Amino acid sequence: MAVYTEVSDEDLEAFVAEYDLGAVRSCKGIAEGVENTNYLLQTDKGSYILTLYEKRVSVADLPFFIELMDHLASRGLACPTPLHGRDGRALRRLCGRPAAIVTFLNGLWPRRIAPEHCTAVGQALAEMHRAGADFPKTRANALGSHAWRALFTSASPRADEVAAGLGGRIAAGLDWLETHWPKHLPAGVIHADLFPDNVFFNDNHVSGLIDFYFACNDFLAYDLAICINAWCFESDASFNVTKARLLVSAYQKVRPMSDTEFGALPVLARGAAMRFLLTRLYDWLNTPKGAMVKRKDPLEYDAKLRFFAGIAGPDGLGLA
Amino acid sequence: MAVYTEVSDEDLEAFVAEYDLGAVRSCKGIAEGVENTNYLLQTDKGSYILTLYEKRVSVADLPFFIELMDHLASRGLACPTPLHGRDGRALRRLCGRPAAIVTFLNGLWPRRIAPEHCTAVGQALAEMHRAGADFPKTRANALGSHAWRALFTSASPRADEVAAGLGGRIAAGLDWLETHWPKHLPAGVIHADLFPDNVFFNDNHVSGLIDFYFACNDFLAYDLAICINAWCFESDASFNVTKARLLVSAYQKVRPMSDTEFGALPVLARGAAMRFLLTRLYDWLNTPKGAMVKRKDPLEYDAKLRFFAGIAGPDGLGLA
Repeated sequence: MAVYTEVSDEDLEAFVAEYDLGAVRSCKGIAEGVENTNYLLQTDKGSYILTLYEKRVSVADLPFFIELMDHLASRGLACPTPLHGRDGRALRRLCGRPAAIVTFLNGLWPRRIAPEHCTAVGQALAEMHRAGADFPKTRANALGSHAWRALFTSASPRADEVAAGLGGRIAAGLDWLETHWPKHLPAGVIHADLFPDNVFFNDNHVSGLIDFYFACNDFLAYDLAICINAWCFESDASFNVTKARLLVSAYQKVRPMSDTEFGALPVLARGAAMRFLLTRLYDWLNTPKGAMVKRKDPLEYDAKLRFFAGIAGPDGLGLA
Repeated sequence: MAVYTEVSDEDLEAFVAEYDLGAVRSCKGIAEGVENTNYLLQTDKGSYILTLYEKRVSVADLPFFIELMDHLASRGLACPTPLHGRDGRALRRLCGRPAAIVTFLNGLWPRRIAPEHCTAVGQALAEMHRAGADFPKTRANALGSHAWRALFTSASPRADEVAAGLGGRIAAGLDWLETHWPKHLPAGVIHADLFPDNVFFNDNHVSGLIDFYFACNDFLAYDLAICINAWCFESDASFNVTKARLLVSAYQKVRPMSDTEFGALPVLARGAAMRFLLTRLYDWLNTPKGAMVKRKDPLEYDAKLRFFAGIAGPDGLGLA
């Protein structure tokens, strides 16, 4: 939501000169991307996104992210494609930070989710999973099920400041998830954060997926379970089974799931709700008061966690 | 520094359909413009800025600002030109707010001020004053010299929270300014906020002036005095006489000042320092802790005010 690093014109021009982009025409800080500084860069050759990676992204992970986007784009997935400089490198430094230029994607992310969006995102997610199947690098999911207990421990003493009983609900949920979390499911590279603001549309068709900075290796169906959380609830916290059906069936048309995967969706969705509840709770309690970041409400995921805790199988999600 | 209003895709498309712009390709919230919500809008026809006017801008003033940009652009000044819809209107409503689309200007605003920038901005300011000379509407300067005492009264009880002795320095400065402020100088439409982030450059040439939302009628030389404050100090608060000379002489080449105007520059510059000190102090003391706005340091203008208080005439600014 902010520009963390101001780039001087001289530094910008020197940086852009490493690429075959012509002259800089304009460069506007954009109010998207909580983690990094993003500029919409316009040059003689077109529009691009210039990203400066701020400290929340681990430098060691950057080659994974950049090469993943390169790989997915080479497989035909619409996603930002890193530009390579004259020296072949896609990742270099600007203003003391790692930085890269990627292609600009047209489209708008949907502020109001229509059922057709869920169909389109289900298909796009499965296409991403297929395109990533032969990506050679791996990255552990730093926010996967193994990390939740530690996340909670750091937040638990103050959880009840946010809502009465929240700490107890999370503790009970973690106990349950640790017992029921699947051990073996088809795994691969997942996006892990495919929320509406990371999916661009043109006329209800996906024009691109962005923000691969949580991508990692985990159960593929867990990525779909994240989308169930992100795309199928209404703003009043009610669960829209029509959207869930469209999302899952569109996904299955491209990458059919095994019965075990399908049956695991409710557990995975409950785990995904826990993951976003925990990180939002952590951020809520640890964001400095004056920070220029809109804090996301953890209680939205407390409600989702309770919803998933109340269902037994896929039919509780409206899935046949 | 923020997107205050999120525009849904449906609302955006309906809004853009009022213009002859083709289809929307993308729309990114930009992290510039403290007062309003600005989107960089790309359509089949090109790039534009979509502005939603938030509550700090008075609705009654909007026709003045929009018509002024129209007028200046028609006189050949490079500034955002409001687009008129099929119904002829440039100002309409979006998401419950007044909104307008203006042309997009290429260029970068300078993060580091070089002497050549001062030459260019002096010329551009004088050209704006000439282009605005026959603009028929008027708007009083709500932050002009008459407003300073009241601004201070609202901030004075807490001024010393910001720096020891600040309240006393402002009170003494106001007393002096009220006695010495010029009564009669050539007046007209001024920009009133021509800081570096409101001037775009291409290769050290001005490609456009933006942000006319403080424009009003006041002494023309006061606008130049604002630029002396905004462009001629180094980051260590030292005054750069080379920059001041270039700024003022480039201005004079396009619009020569009378001796009285020239002689008034030190007083006007001291008043401009007071104006920005007061508004920054007010914002500093009244910005809510969690607000997504970078507060600007009032003490920068405390230092400038002290500098101007210490000089007697234009030669104190390095001006012949």
